[in-house]
Amino acid sequence: MRLLVINPNTTATMTEKIGAAARRVAAPGTEILAVNPGRGPASIEGYYDEAISLAGLLEVIGSRSDYDAVIIACFDDTGLDAARCLTDKPVIGIGEAAFHMAAMLSNSFSVVTTLGRSVPAISHNLARYGLAARCARVRASEIPVLDLEDPLSDASARIGHEVARAILEDRAEAIVLGCAGMTDLARALSQAHGLPVLDGVVCAVALAEGMVRLGLATSRLGGYAPPRFDKSAPVPPGRGPAP
Amino acid sequence: MRLLVINPNTTATMTEKIGAAARRVAAPGTEILAVNPGRGPASIEGYYDEAISLAGLLEVIGSRSDYDAVIIACFDDTGLDAARCLTDKPVIGIGEAAFHMAAMLSNSFSVVTTLGRSVPAISHNLARYGLAARCARVRASEIPVLDLEDPLSDASARIGHEVARAILEDRAEAIVLGCAGMTDLARALSQAHGLPVLDGVVCAVALAEGMVRLGLATSRLGGYAPPRFDKSAPVPPGRGPAP
Amino acid sequence: MRLLVINPNTTATMTEKIGAAARRVAAPGTEILAVNPGRGPASIEGYYDEAISLAGLLEVIGSRSDYDAVIIACFDDTGLDAARCLTDKPVIGIGEAAFHMAAMLSNSFSVVTTLGRSVPAISHNLARYGLAARCARVRASEIPVLDLEDPLSDASARIGHEVARAILEDRAEAIVLGCAGMTDLARALSQAHGLPVLDGVVCAVALAEGMVRLGLATSRLGGYAPPRFDKSAPVPPGRGPAP
Amino acid sequence: MRLLVINPNTTATMTEKIGAAARRVAAPGTEILAVNPGRGPASIEGYYDEAISLAGLLEVIGSRSDYDAVIIACFDDTGLDAARCLTDKPVIGIGEAAFHMAAMLSNSFSVVTTLGRSVPAISHNLARYGLAARCARVRASEIPVLDLEDPLSDASARIGHEVARAILEDRAEAIVLGCAGMTDLARALSQAHGLPVLDGVVCAVALAEGMVRLGLATSRLGGYAPPRFDKSAPVPPGRGPAP
Amino acid sequence: MRLLVINPNTTATMTEKIGAAARRVAAPGTEILAVNPGRGPASIEGYYDEAISLAGLLEVIGSRSDYDAVIIACFDDTGLDAARCLTDKPVIGIGEAAFHMAAMLSNSFSVVTTLGRSVPAISHNLARYGLAARCARVRASEIPVLDLEDPLSDASARIGHEVARAILEDRAEAIVLGCAGMTDLARALSQAHGLPVLDGVVCAVALAEGMVRLGLATSRLGGYAPPRFDKSAPVPPGRGPAP
Amino acid sequence: MRLLVINPNTTATMTEKIGAAARRVAAPGTEILAVNPGRGPASIEGYYDEAISLAGLLEVIGSRSDYDAVIIACFDDTGLDAARCLTDKPVIGIGEAAFHMAAMLSNSFSVVTTLGRSVPAISHNLARYGLAARCARVRASEIPVLDLEDPLSDASARIGHEVARAILEDRAEAIVLGCAGMTDLARALSQAHGLPVLDGVVCAVALAEGMVRLGLATSRLGGYAPPRFDKSAPVPPGRGPAP
Repeated sequence: MRLLVINPNTTATMTEKIGAAARRVAAPGTEILAVNPGRGPASIEGYYDEAISLAGLLEVIGSRSDYDAVIIACFDDTGLDAARCLTDKPVIGIGEAAFHMAAMLSNSFSVVTTLGRSVPAISHNLARYGLAARCARVRASEIPVLDLEDPLSDASARIGHEVARAILEDRAEAIVLGCAGMTDLARALSQAHGLPVLDGVVCAVALAEGMVRLGLATSRLGGYAPPRFDKSAPVPPGRGPAP
Repeated sequence: MRLLVINPNTTATMTEKIGAAARRVAAPGTEILAVNPGRGPASIEGYYDEAISLAGLLEVIGSRSDYDAVIIACFDDTGLDAARCLTDKPVIGIGEAAFHMAAMLSNSFSVVTTLGRSVPAISHNLARYGLAARCARVRASEIPVLDLEDPLSDASARIGHEVARAILEDRAEAIVLGCAGMTDLARALSQAHGLPVLDGVVCAVALAEGMVRLGLATSRLGGYAPPRFDKSAPVPPGRGPAP
Repeated sequence: MRLLVINPNTTATMTEKIGAAARRVAAPGTEILAVNPGRGPASIEGYYDEAISLAGLLEVIGSRSDYDAVIIACFDDTGLDAARCLTDKPVIGIGEAAFHMAAMLSNSFSVVTTLGRSVPAISHNLARYGLAARCARVRASEIPVLDLEDPLSDASARIGHEVARAILEDRAEAIVLGCAGMTDLARALSQAHGLPVLDGVVCAVALAEGMVRLGLATSRLGGYAPPRFDKSAPVPPGRGPAP
Repeated sequence: MRLLVINPNTTATMTEKIGAAARRVAAPGTEILAVNPGRGPASIEGYYDEAISLAGLLEVIGSRSDYDAVIIACFDDTGLDAARCLTDKPVIGIGEAAFHMAAMLSNSFSVVTTLGRSVPAISHNLARYGLAARCARVRASEIPVLDLEDPLSDASARIGHEVARAILEDRAEAIVLGCAGMTDLARALSQAHGLPVLDGVVCAVALAEGMVRLGLATSRLGGYAPPRFDKSAPVPPGRGPAP
Repeated sequence: MRLLVINPNTTATMTEKIGAAARRVAAPGTEILAVNPGRGPASIEGYYDEAISLAGLLEVIGSRSDYDAVIIACFDDTGLDAARCLTDKPVIGIGEAAFHMAAMLSNSFSVVTTLGRSVPAISHNLARYGLAARCARVRASEIPVLDLEDPLSDASARIGHEVARAILEDRAEAIVLGCAGMTDLARALSQAHGLPVLDGVVCAVALAEGMVRLGLATSRLGGYAPPRFDKSAPVPPGRGPAP
Repeated sequence: MRLLVINPNTTATMTEKIGAAARRVAAPGTEILAVNPGRGPASIEGYYDEAISLAGLLEVIGSRSDYDAVIIACFDDTGLDAARCLTDKPVIGIGEAAFHMAAMLSNSFSVVTTLGRSVPAISHNLARYGLAARCARVRASEIPVLDLEDPLSDASARIGHEVARAILEDRAEAIVLGCAGMTDLARALSQAHGLPVLDGVVCAVALAEGMVRLGLATSRLGGYAPPRFDKSAPVPPGRGPAP
């Protein structure tokens, strides 16, 4: 099976890191296609960056058909609803993947993300998914996304500090790491703090593999129906107009 | 004062109708700039259309500065959060405008929109704005957006039928029309059914005028902070990088 | 157009201050009638004061018809629902006005009010309007209402202190001032703290003007239907019994 | 022990019926003082009637001290919060009494009230008490309150019809009767339909007796603190100004 | 009337303390049968203890019929829903009893319980009952249940400390004690801190007495219908199979 | 990897059917241990059956250690929280598994279960998991669980009828089958009605496999901490007392 893992920003080193993380947990026989759009923002930190990444992101999905499921590897789950209109294969956001997994391993979890400006978008997603009540708090470590790529930054220590506060102040029983760039840190943080620490990339791989093996598909009724007809946009391959 | 009213789809006749509706209610001294992007979908009916309209929509906002407030004239409030990152002028979506107004004129309201596929996006917006509990029901008349431009369609009768059911079945005390293309119908429906029927375009004009006169601005703290720095996207004029 | 701005307490200096604030933002051609009942409490600080102000408040509304909209200038929105039964003109509370405006300028806002005893009533209103999820916290500065009329009090400093905490602790992106008597402070606080600070009086003026210009009316169906028939109460002029 | 049962409207026959119902279930040694204000509306059907009944209602409470608890015998729980500021004795509304009891006898209940215009006020109360999720639906039988006093009306049959629909359509496991005037009907409806049918008057008597025997008092901290000082209103006996 | 008060753990000293507390507030003519199962955990501190207490608890209820109502004297309301399927007599949990009472005496309350591990179960109950919005916070004093039986422990001081914080930090207007073993402390804490402090055992006695006197029964429709037929479990006396 | 799939009722044919369904979707290398307790109810239809199945269910989990994850194969997720206290391996309920999967494939789903008496328990679970807002409706087909084992019953037709109504009346975009005994029907219903139809058994297998491969464990902090010490219950192997 082939999973199309899309990093919606254009930073190739992050795409590689995400791809490597995905491959480490993929089942035998699962191929990981880790890609990023050719155009768009270098990182996604807030609503505007999300919006301008969408054209590139959807073009990647719409221009290929060589996959069994799609993973959107941005913690904001950028373009998730739109992507689901383009294919009836499963489409999973790494944010939702981690939230759903954490909800089955703990009574409540906290999120530790990058900058404070990302907190509202994550909070909105939690509310939209219905899982806001399961999340004790969305915390910001105030680390810019691209600093996570810098081995000399104190990113890891600052994230660990927020994990410790989440346990103490939020009664968090699990932690969700709020950025695809944190995928390397999960295991060490889990061991250091003695609770599940979830990275969305690997959660999404496991969920996508499961859905594909079960033959599950995105619903075509209602909100995820295919686009009605072309309107100056590239036609998604293999999908004609719908009623 | 100048209000930039953006129809995020590319159907010029709809842009004209929206502009005319806005001008009919604008205060003396308010100039309405009704525009649409040069590229994007011909109508917005669901998540995918929303997503592919964003680049054009944000380009319009980012490339001009000759306005005092922005109105996004799509009932899905397409790109509202992203647009607010581009300017500290007020930015109002016609969906939210109608919801907030309706919430001050009734105990609960129903929405009558076009196709069933748009219901989830509207429901998500209501939840995100916090007003889901004020909305009794989101109803679909199953009329495609562009049929509203066709004077021979039975659109008006079918919308009236849903209004009648909303009063009877939902105990709706007011109706919100769920598409910018319905702006012409509000007054007649209100008189025929004896309750407030709100069109988002005119509600947004009144709200924008009010905010401008009060000197209110979009917050620059948190989620609507300006984009951190340019990442292959056009720089919004007059906004440098933010911390 | 004429806006009837009712301060439901009997402190005339507060009525004057409210009237002056309203006039400063009113559009050309809008006349502000700032009045207070002849009887009732000197200030409204909690549920009991609200209740005993109602007879005077409703008498003012029921005894006149020379207005196009009503503004209830008490942050608790005292008597709002009852007043809407007395007229099909728009009736706006300054609390709800500020909440709705703040919800269109920020992802979440905090309220800074006077005494802690007022917090539950404000929280209940937020829940009833549906906007509780948009409000990060209702804060009390522990300043009695009438101290706001005393130029020598340290009211302004204490309110500023709570604004600073709201930004830091609540991630508030905007502030709503929780008392009609704070109307003078909004602009200075906004400049000092760098975020929108909303005063309900001026928000209500803008909303009322907008609703009047759009021809919007309070719904007469359901909860705001006119009183069924006189029952030892003064008959509101121009409204007969309803079915 | 003495329970002050106040019918906040001025219809003495209803006061007598309420008093009789209360006495039938009162424990030995409990004295029921069933009273109504000398002025106010003849029935309470909506927000306006609620508001104009408050002065009379609070006067009754504030002018006496010969009771151990207060019951407000209007299903809208008119003036409940204000009354609690006037005394630290328990104050119970018949609406909340029935809701809380029903929540301990069933998974979910429906309310059957009089006119549709009362539905929003009841719904708001349920939300404010936190019990909205326990109520499947608020149903209106479209019977005016005073028709319940008329033995020739078909009120009983119409209420029974709504009970049957609540069982079938709402999966209601219990019914709350939504008007003090329905107190006579509970037992017969319960037997006819085979499920608990709760009348708020008797529920409130049992709750008040229980609270008095346990020595429980209304909190004086926060929202129910006594009024700060007299402001042209009658001073409640035995309560001086509070800080 | 006879109330069957079941302590679902096997610690007989706690059963005696609970029985004594119940008798102190019971009305003349009410007999308190305080019992505990012969097998099960010595204390209930978390989900597992709850689960393994159920067989013993339900056996007690199913094997007797000499009661008019049942009180489950564990703050987690262990087995409450299952017990209601076994009898149409009222069945009241001491947790829900205290929550409902507190909701009628205050705008919001905090819970002070034993160990942090019990917080999620209590929070789930509050959500399930619909009263989560009325509870400001569930606090843990980190005192094991059986330490409450030890007169030399500092349990009382630590609980008092949490009460003080609840008033200051949570704006709690009342306190609910979160363990049947705290029943002795309520009065002293209430006097020391000047607000209602509720113990679930006595609240449940008052509610049960009220329900019995009113003739109220647990609903047999829907979720509390009697078990369909025996399936290797002891048949509850007097209840045959239901459709 | 070994998955312990426990049918908490004692009907061996249902255990076999569940095991077969699990094996059909299990990855190569996954061993399915499908078991049921030796004592307990023959089917689980409501709260009482749930409660009396717990001792047997927990005994199975506590007496073995030869598994990598546990699946509780009853749609009510019977004993889920208690089971998580007994092991730090992942424990998944088939109800939650299907809800979480459905939430990633549709905007909203409906549940079709067996008897109406099971609706409240399922609704409570949805609320507790936080996913109530994602579920449009819980529908009952009024088919007893064991009739699903009878090839001559009209169970399949009646379930199909409810699926059709869910699409039409609830705008359901996916269906969750609300009983482990329906596992055979999912594929045919999905093809017949053109939307995803999810069976919890297979969803749980995929989730469990994913969690095991990712090395994820149930949190030991807070609510799922191991039982404090033995109290007349069998000691879970390999777990000593916890602080």
